[in-house]
Amino acid sequence: MTDATPFTKLLEELKLDGRYRTFAQLERIAGAFPMARWHGSGGESRTVTVWCSNDYLGMGQHPDVLSAMHEALDLSGAGSGGTRNISGTGRQHVALETELADLHGKEAALLFTSGWISNLAALGTLGSVLPGCVILSDAQNHNSMIEGIRRSGAEKRIFRHNDIAHLEELLAATDADRPKLIAFESVYSMDGDVAPIREICDLAEKYGALTYLDEVHAVGLYGPQGGGIAEREGIAHRLTLIEGTLAKGFGVIGGYVTGPEALIDVIRSVANSFIFTTSLCPHIAAGALASIRHVRTREDLRQKQAQIADTLKLELRQAGFPVIETSTHIVPLVVGEAHLCKAISDRLLEDHSIYAQPINYPTVAVGQERLRLTPTPFHTEHHIRELVDALIQVSAELNWSRAGEAVAPRRVA
Amino acid sequence: MTDATPFTKLLEELKLDGRYRTFAQLERIAGAFPMARWHGSGGESRTVTVWCSNDYLGMGQHPDVLSAMHEALDLSGAGSGGTRNISGTGRQHVALETELADLHGKEAALLFTSGWISNLAALGTLGSVLPGCVILSDAQNHNSMIEGIRRSGAEKRIFRHNDIAHLEELLAATDADRPKLIAFESVYSMDGDVAPIREICDLAEKYGALTYLDEVHAVGLYGPQGGGIAEREGIAHRLTLIEGTLAKGFGVIGGYVTGPEALIDVIRSVANSFIFTTSLCPHIAAGALASIRHVRTREDLRQKQAQIADTLKLELRQAGFPVIETSTHIVPLVVGEAHLCKAISDRLLEDHSIYAQPINYPTVAVGQERLRLTPTPFHTEHHIRELVDALIQVSAELNWSRAGEAVAPRRVA
Repeated sequence: MTDATPFTKLLEELKLDGRYRTFAQLERIAGAFPMARWHGSGGESRTVTVWCSNDYLGMGQHPDVLSAMHEALDLSGAGSGGTRNISGTGRQHVALETELADLHGKEAALLFTSGWISNLAALGTLGSVLPGCVILSDAQNHNSMIEGIRRSGAEKRIFRHNDIAHLEELLAATDADRPKLIAFESVYSMDGDVAPIREICDLAEKYGALTYLDEVHAVGLYGPQGGGIAEREGIAHRLTLIEGTLAKGFGVIGGYVTGPEALIDVIRSVANSFIFTTSLCPHIAAGALASIRHVRTREDLRQKQAQIADTLKLELRQAGFPVIETSTHIVPLVVGEAHLCKAISDRLLEDHSIYAQPINYPTVAVGQERLRLTPTPFHTEHHIRELVDALIQVSAELNWSRAGEAVAPRRVA
Repeated sequence: MTDATPFTKLLEELKLDGRYRTFAQLERIAGAFPMARWHGSGGESRTVTVWCSNDYLGMGQHPDVLSAMHEALDLSGAGSGGTRNISGTGRQHVALETELADLHGKEAALLFTSGWISNLAALGTLGSVLPGCVILSDAQNHNSMIEGIRRSGAEKRIFRHNDIAHLEELLAATDADRPKLIAFESVYSMDGDVAPIREICDLAEKYGALTYLDEVHAVGLYGPQGGGIAEREGIAHRLTLIEGTLAKGFGVIGGYVTGPEALIDVIRSVANSFIFTTSLCPHIAAGALASIRHVRTREDLRQKQAQIADTLKLELRQAGFPVIETSTHIVPLVVGEAHLCKAISDRLLEDHSIYAQPINYPTVAVGQERLRLTPTPFHTEHHIRELVDALIQVSAELNWSRAGEAVAPRRVA
């Protein structure tokens, strides 16, 4: 090959900036969540408590999920063998789509290989098939939404994060005849804050806009049946499309979009990222279906998680840590500098067998580096005590001033 | 929501053009491949012979694959619980990447949730980090490669399909100082023809270009260890990057890129479609690893598939069908009109319990609609006889003139 210099130079820059990522190698232990076996590059290994998984409800190890997957593997084998159109639609896919539409009270649903692809496909399609479409996008939207909007070719107008007044300003300034789509999330992944969904729906109705709500960090976790924040607020029916994931609260993998039949059918018919890809494995669809059916009945699991999250936040605050105040299960502890953030994470792992990955650019902005703690119903008060004690010790050792002002999120609903 | 008219109108157009897709609902039967249970929309069902699966070697049902998946499911649970960076790297992912690099004789490999994403991520990254990069792209490249090149923002120059002279013309006309990348496939999915890889490598060396070879329809199937056409030709080492899939010859799901360590590390560090997505499930990685290890040893399986493909092509030709002449396992039977193609497929299913999905736009160009038959080592001479007899009967019933000129592919290597 030709000169590798541009590549090695770029990698050097990432290392200097503390942005180079080292993936921790874990061996999840089904049945012992949130414990996992960590493997070092030198062959050493130890059992650690995981504090940064998005398997928010531990459904990735639930017996119902695993047995549905085992059964479907034996019945239908491993892969689907094709795209959805060419031999890759199984009964499991169809059953799962029916369940997802029902979960969100929508006419139809469409499965994707990931949540990232859901957003790319759905936003990319809607923005491209509506002539003259304007997409109003929250400033903190996930990368996959940004990529979908970019891919659509539609005009994008960014409203300040969760800022209703700014959104209305932009809507009012947009030609009334142009199709409009408001794209936003319910729970924002890195700050854990919640969108003013009801007010956004009010504006959408006032200005005749479609709405697209990403609930990936909420499905399974909020609402009487785990349908997300929109379900909790009783306003799921007011949203045009709700997008979600099977990889977090439901513990498996894959993404989906639910909404009116015609819109879903257009996404199905037009989106290249859907058309030209092998469908999810049948047993994955079977596992996700079992997970959703179980989670819909487990309000107790949601309450337990909320309680653990509250306890963690309280203990961290009492110890003086600058935890961002949120009403959700996401507990961000901003460190604000990449090298220090990595050092804290390394020290937690090495000295305390606690795994919390440092979160750096591009996942958060430079200067917003953090630990992002995700308490689950399987974390105990003992785990919390261990974590807070370890953080106290590490912060002292590394001169990380934890007396910093508690950072308020941009908005808490 | 607002007016659904633009969506329903678009769907009506698709239906009129014969481009509206109806997904056949199948229940794969592990252990009985290529048989599956077909389920109709009215609740009826029947056992069918599948002739259009990309599970080319039936590895989706292989006991080694299934038992590795069962075992990993019990060990590590269902989902990975996070992105590769945030708790989503398992031992299984690392082991699989090591195996893939070894399979292609490269320094490093990187896993993705699909082959579509591999191409988006790798081409999107390489084209964007090399200042002034020009990507030379085969005219028949897969949608995912086109999307990756578009995403990169690099200048794209399309060379006529498999046309070495045209490629050289474009290379010679490109500023010698600009970085250049030649992107192409080994086996083209829909025509089954093969690229002149050696000649492209010669040109790449002459003009100082990187090469990017998509081997998704070849891995597992060609080469002494199933490393693809480049391995078969003994020239894998001459290619900068080789991309492949785990969803076809290896029977599971997922995609990957292999190549020099620095380039793979840059893709890992920069590609949003890699960074911002939950990693493959650990048991999927375990199943793919078992599949690759098995397939590497099964030259007999590759020979058997080639023999079945040859028999099918011979029988079709003898019956006067316009089968495209290729040296690969892909057997395209061009019908050339969407409604007729669908009618043939429907008739095969209803009257003969044979499933071969009609392939239409955008998977092939309008006027190129076809049945794309994919013989596997598990199709028998009896299956072939049944298929050819059914095609003869259906072609008579539908006045499909099969005496049409046999279509030659643009180039057969």
